[in-house]
Amino acid sequence: MNELVSILKLEDVELDIFRGFTPPERDGRRIYGGQVVAQSLAAAYRTVEGRVCHSLHSYFIRPGDPKIPILFKVERVRDGGSFSVRRVVAIQHGQQIFNLAASFQVPETGFEHQIDLPDAPDPETLLNEEQLREKAGVDQSDRLPWPVEVRPTDPQPWGVAQKLPPTDMVWFRARQSVGEDVAANQCALAYGTDMTLLDTSLRPHGVDWNSGRLQVASLDHALWFHHPSDFSTWHLYVQDSPSASGGRGFNRGSIFDASGRLVASATQEALIRYR
Amino acid sequence: MNELVSILKLEDVELDIFRGFTPPERDGRRIYGGQVVAQSLAAAYRTVEGRVCHSLHSYFIRPGDPKIPILFKVERVRDGGSFSVRRVVAIQHGQQIFNLAASFQVPETGFEHQIDLPDAPDPETLLNEEQLREKAGVDQSDRLPWPVEVRPTDPQPWGVAQKLPPTDMVWFRARQSVGEDVAANQCALAYGTDMTLLDTSLRPHGVDWNSGRLQVASLDHALWFHHPSDFSTWHLYVQDSPSASGGRGFNRGSIFDASGRLVASATQEALIRYR
Repeated sequence: MNELVSILKLEDVELDIFRGFTPPERDGRRIYGGQVVAQSLAAAYRTVEGRVCHSLHSYFIRPGDPKIPILFKVERVRDGGSFSVRRVVAIQHGQQIFNLAASFQVPETGFEHQIDLPDAPDPETLLNEEQLREKAGVDQSDRLPWPVEVRPTDPQPWGVAQKLPPTDMVWFRARQSVGEDVAANQCALAYGTDMTLLDTSLRPHGVDWNSGRLQVASLDHALWFHHPSDFSTWHLYVQDSPSASGGRGFNRGSIFDASGRLVASATQEALIRYR
Repeated sequence: MNELVSILKLEDVELDIFRGFTPPERDGRRIYGGQVVAQSLAAAYRTVEGRVCHSLHSYFIRPGDPKIPILFKVERVRDGGSFSVRRVVAIQHGQQIFNLAASFQVPETGFEHQIDLPDAPDPETLLNEEQLREKAGVDQSDRLPWPVEVRPTDPQPWGVAQKLPPTDMVWFRARQSVGEDVAANQCALAYGTDMTLLDTSLRPHGVDWNSGRLQVASLDHALWFHHPSDFSTWHLYVQDSPSASGGRGFNRGSIFDASGRLVASATQEALIRYR
């Protein structure tokens, strides 16, 4: 099964209303946020012709239930000469679990600049998250591997959270290609951008997902797509956290393809607090 | 007249429906974007009790008409134990000109970190934008001063756009206080954050607002409020542009108060192209 291809297959319900599914194997307590971002973007794309997404802004509102489908309602806010704006609401059990706004543009060329790719170790010299767990002797027999492979550039000793600077870099890519379609690759990339970003804001505090009593959840997620890219190839996700305050951590990301082109930017604020 | 106080006075139309106005003196061709951001946030606040905005995400959809009122329709997406989510649609002539989503939180304390305040010249040693225009002999007899004073830390020769790095810092503050209310100060700050941010993405290209044939417009605007602040005091707006591509420039901002506390972060993508 190609999980990314599978989740992006939305069922038509009515005009601008779609239904998406969580793979039955992905039977956790709640739906992974990146899945809902990717599916909402796919739903918006179903109402757009010949235009490419350049940005999306979203809120995680309630935990998603992996056992039932998600209804995606798309609002066609505007179709202008160059830009189309959409809003998407994701509904389960009669309530919004997530909403998103996105903008699409007729491709054009113009001014070009970008920040530089930082120095990073070659991804082929690094272990991925599953290999790091295995090396640490962590039982993962009941873990389904993610459809996006992540190789941290600076892996930390397992289970002993260190106090670290609020910056981090990981290589990541889709384990299986979603094809050459620009939209599908954006959705796949969007899926991957929610996996590691919020951890950046935990690093200065010597806590991680394994720390007891810690409550961690994505609050919002925004992406800007600067250039199309093939997400089955390695991408470097350069992440920093300018702030933590009020029980929240704010994180930013810059995503480069392996040639050094900045293909996307990301932000995410997360709830990070003790229960 | 305190223009910021004046624009934040929204008229009640119906439950969760409000009407805002553009000061008659501000009779330009279109409404300044920061005004609509500030008013939409104020409209959302009218439906929230005892919670403070920690983030907003918005899209500029159509130019606003300064001659008629703006209708703000607020949707109460969720009121949870700690967080409230709202969506706001701003309407003129029967069409959405702008939409926003925002999240509000019961104040709490927790992990704290922030990036450092960079070195910057004392704002009291700098000229503001009106003084820079006057010094350059630019006629501003038909210009109404903005309610937010801006003092560039690195002012450029007037009318001769240089090629510069895609980074910039300005000091800014409300010319008149909006009082001690946290919400009103957030709205005032939001107003100010749309004035200079997109210019950052123009800097590497040797063009500015005065360059002929250049079409420039804010596409989206997002803010994260990390700490309350008094926007009648000086704030440093540290801005960078990681990318320009496809006729768009992407910009980020970090906003510090004069004591060096990071009080907010911002992002904005803008249309930057030749007509």
